[in-house]
Amino acid sequence: MTRFRALVEVSLRPGIADPQGATIERALPALGFEAISGVRAGKAFRFVVDATDEHAARKQVDDLCRRLLTNPVIEDSAVTLEQA
Amino acid sequence: MTRFRALVEVSLRPGIADPQGATIERALPALGFEAISGVRAGKAFRFVVDATDEHAARKQVDDLCRRLLTNPVIEDSAVTLEQA
Repeated sequence: MTRFRALVEVSLRPGIADPQGATIERALPALGFEAISGVRAGKAFRFVVDATDEHAARKQVDDLCRRLLTNPVIEDSAVTLEQA
Repeated sequence: MTRFRALVEVSLRPGIADPQGATIERALPALGFEAISGVRAGKAFRFVVDATDEHAARKQVDDLCRRLLTNPVIEDSAVTLEQA
């Protein structure tokens, strides 16, 4: 068994309204951040996976994304794995 | 001016209670994910920064993290920048 550290970034799919990102963006000029735009808010999950190899670990994480961490209708997920 | 794509990962500092992560972790055995543990939930923000160079872009993003995106008492932030 090998231990992997996983990072899953869950983001809203392009075209899906993002009120949290829009609210942050509206606050930027008053704070002096004129050069920042296109804010999108998402989620980041970190956890540990024990698996025989990276392929098996990725399969588990993809499965977890589909079944629990994301709503595939409106969200995308990006998985990063590294050996612990 | 150069355009940079920024990713800010906001995570709870070690030792800070994470009810969302704990709830996900409690659901894992019933879904068949016995090999996944240590779940921590955080936030991910993506946006675009226009700056003269990467150093100036990073300064702006660090400033934004401190003033708007994180609560430094309980949260850490990790910034990734890439040229757009």
